[in-house]
Amino acid sequence: MKIKCMKSNLLTGVNIVSKAVPSKTTMAILECILIDASANSIKLISNDMELGIETVVQGEIIENGIIALDAKIFSEMVRKLPDAEVTITTDGSFKTKITCGKSKFDIVGKSGDDFSYLPAIDMENPIVISQLTLRDIVKQTIFSINENDNNKLMSGELLEIEDKNLRLVALDGHRIAIRNVELTDSYERSKTVIPGKALSEVTKILTGGANDKVNIFISDKHIAFIFDNTTVVSRLLEGEFFNVDNMLQSNYETKMRIYKKDLTECIDRATLLAREGDKKPIVMDIKDGNLNLRIQSFIGSMDEDIEIEKNGKDMMIAFNPKFCLDVLRVIDDEEVEIYLLSPKAPCFIKDADETYVYMILPVNFNAGV
Amino acid sequence: MKIKCMKSNLLTGVNIVSKAVPSKTTMAILECILIDASANSIKLISNDMELGIETVVQGEIIENGIIALDAKIFSEMVRKLPDAEVTITTDGSFKTKITCGKSKFDIVGKSGDDFSYLPAIDMENPIVISQLTLRDIVKQTIFSINENDNNKLMSGELLEIEDKNLRLVALDGHRIAIRNVELTDSYERSKTVIPGKALSEVTKILTGGANDKVNIFISDKHIAFIFDNTTVVSRLLEGEFFNVDNMLQSNYETKMRIYKKDLTECIDRATLLAREGDKKPIVMDIKDGNLNLRIQSFIGSMDEDIEIEKNGKDMMIAFNPKFCLDVLRVIDDEEVEIYLLSPKAPCFIKDADETYVYMILPVNFNAGV
Repeated sequence: MKIKCMKSNLLTGVNIVSKAVPSKTTMAILECILIDASANSIKLISNDMELGIETVVQGEIIENGIIALDAKIFSEMVRKLPDAEVTITTDGSFKTKITCGKSKFDIVGKSGDDFSYLPAIDMENPIVISQLTLRDIVKQTIFSINENDNNKLMSGELLEIEDKNLRLVALDGHRIAIRNVELTDSYERSKTVIPGKALSEVTKILTGGANDKVNIFISDKHIAFIFDNTTVVSRLLEGEFFNVDNMLQSNYETKMRIYKKDLTECIDRATLLAREGDKKPIVMDIKDGNLNLRIQSFIGSMDEDIEIEKNGKDMMIAFNPKFCLDVLRVIDDEEVEIYLLSPKAPCFIKDADETYVYMILPVNFNAGV
Repeated sequence: MKIKCMKSNLLTGVNIVSKAVPSKTTMAILECILIDASANSIKLISNDMELGIETVVQGEIIENGIIALDAKIFSEMVRKLPDAEVTITTDGSFKTKITCGKSKFDIVGKSGDDFSYLPAIDMENPIVISQLTLRDIVKQTIFSINENDNNKLMSGELLEIEDKNLRLVALDGHRIAIRNVELTDSYERSKTVIPGKALSEVTKILTGGANDKVNIFISDKHIAFIFDNTTVVSRLLEGEFFNVDNMLQSNYETKMRIYKKDLTECIDRATLLAREGDKKPIVMDIKDGNLNLRIQSFIGSMDEDIEIEKNGKDMMIAFNPKFCLDVLRVIDDEEVEIYLLSPKAPCFIKDADETYVYMILPVNFNAGV
C-alpha cells in the first residue's frame, strides 16, 4: 500500500475513528485503526464490536492495500507530524514507513485480514435530522441513563419516531428525561433503544451546525448515523423499553415559576454541604411568592430564599440536589415551571409545548430537616 | 468577630492563601484558613510550617475577632457565593454565620489560638525585582530541581545576588539550569537556597507585570516575598549549595546554531517512540549544515534531518530527549546555540550574554543505535 494525504485531513480522520477504539479488549486487532485503501478511497476504520466508525480521508492512492496500525501510536504520531503531506507505505511484511517533510517513522503494522468491518445496513429511507439538534437532545437527556443497572435497557436511550415527531427518552430508577423534536419529513412509527455510549460518541464527532444534516438508518439489530464523510454504526439494545407514558401525568396541586439561574446557583451552593456518598436532600418550602431552600449536614447548614410565582397549594418537598442540577443545566429557558402533586409524588419540569419533560422523584424530607 | 467585604475581594484572598494550606498534615488547625480581624485590617493567613502566606482583604471590621475555618469548605463556599457583599459573623463557641444576599451558611470554626503565625522577618533593605521577571526565571529553571534526591539541597534553587546581578540556579544529577538577571539597584553579596515548592507557589500568586514589583527580604532562616497586599514567607534550605562555577566551561569543539522550533518539534516526535520508563536516547549526528536525529525502540524507529549552522568538528552524541525538551521549551529565542566538547562531556545551551546557561549530560549513544 502507498497513500498520500495532508496531515490535517489524516488527523481529522484519526480523531474521528479513535472514538471507537476499545481501551481494553482481548482482541489485539481491535486496538488498531485499519487503513483500507483497497478500492478507490482511503478509509479509516475502527470497531469495538458494539460501535464501529468508518471515515474517508481525502488523499491519493498510489498503490492499493490495507494495513492495521496500533491506534494509540499511530494517532499520537499523526498529531505530532509537521503540517505537510504525509506518505504511508507498507511492504509485504506489514513494515510501515510514515514520512512527512524530513521526518521518517518506521513501525510495524498488522494484517487487516482479521479486522472486523462494519455490519452492512440497508441504506434506504433515511431519517434526516440536523447535526446541531441531535447533539443537543442527546446532551439534554443522556445524564439520566444508568450505565450500571442490571436492566441493560437503562444504559440506553429510547428513540421513538412517529410522523414528524422524534422523541428521545432516558431514565434510571429515579428520574426521566424526554426531549421532543419536530422533523421536516414524516416517517413510519418506529421504536429503537440505542446504547448510551454510541450516542455520546456520535455527538462528540458531530461538529456541524443547524444546517448540516445526519442521515439515520435503522435495521433490526443496528443503527447507522451517516454524515459528512463518516459512518457510525452501533448495535441496538434488545428488549421492550419501559412504558414511559404511564409514568407521566399532567395534573398537579402546586405549580411554581422560577428564574433558572437563581435556582441553579442556590442548589449548587447547597451541594457544598452534601459531600459525595452523603446523600443529604435539599428541602424546598414553597409558599406564595417565596421558595425557601435548606440543607443540613455534618459540615453545617444553608438557608436561602428565592422569589417565585406560585399557583395552587403550599408544599414542602425534598430532592437529591444533584438530580435537580442535572436537569436545570440542560434547559436553555430563562425561567422554568415546576409541577408538584404531593411531597411523595414525582415532580415535573416541563415547558408549555412539552419540547422537554423532566421527571424527578422526591426523597423523604424528614431526613433533611 | 463580624466583618463585611465584597465576595470578589474575599475570593482573591482565599485563592492566594489556599496555596499554603497543606493537603496532608497531622495538625488539623493547619488545614484551616485563619481570618484575623483582631486589629485594623482583615487578614487571611495560612501556614504549612514550611511556607506561610498572609494577605489583606479590603473590607470593614464591625467587631474585632479571629476565627479559623476549614480551608476546603470555606474556599468552596466563597467561590459559590453570589457576587455581592459577604458578612461573616462568629460567636463565642466559634459558630460562624456567612451571609451573602439571601443566602445563609452556618458552619463551625475553630479557635485561632493554636494557629501558627508567620515568622517575623526584619523588613529592611528589600531586594526589588519585577513580578514578571521573577515569575519567568523561576519557570525557566525549576524543572531542573530534584524533589526526591537524598541531598535536600537539590530540591531547592540557589538565589545568588552580587552587585546588580541576580542568579537563579537549579540542578539535579544530570543537568543545570541558570538564569541571570540585571537588577536596577546594587546589593551586597548573598547566597540563599529556597525550597522549590515555595518558588513555585510564589510564582502562582504573582500575577503582576513588568512594572509590578516584589520586595524580597532575606534572614538567616527565612525569605519573605512582599507584593501587593500579600506576604509569602518560606523557610530556607540549610547547607552549602554545589559549586556550580566549577561545573561550567566555555571551551568547545563543536558549536551548532539551530532553529529552536525545528529542534523542539523533532525531539517531541521522537519521544513518541520512547515510552515512560524506557529510557531511549535520541542520537544527534552533527555534520556541516545538517543535524541528523534518530531514535529506536521496540515500537519502531524515527529518523529526521534538520538544517543547522555548524562550527568545529563533526560529532555524534546522544541525550535523554526529555531533558532537551525541558530546556528548549523555556527559551524564548528563535534560534539557539549548542556547545559540545566530546560525546562524553556535558553540552551547553546558552546565549551570547549568558542570560541563560543550560547544561545537559549526554548518555551513552551505543544504547540507542
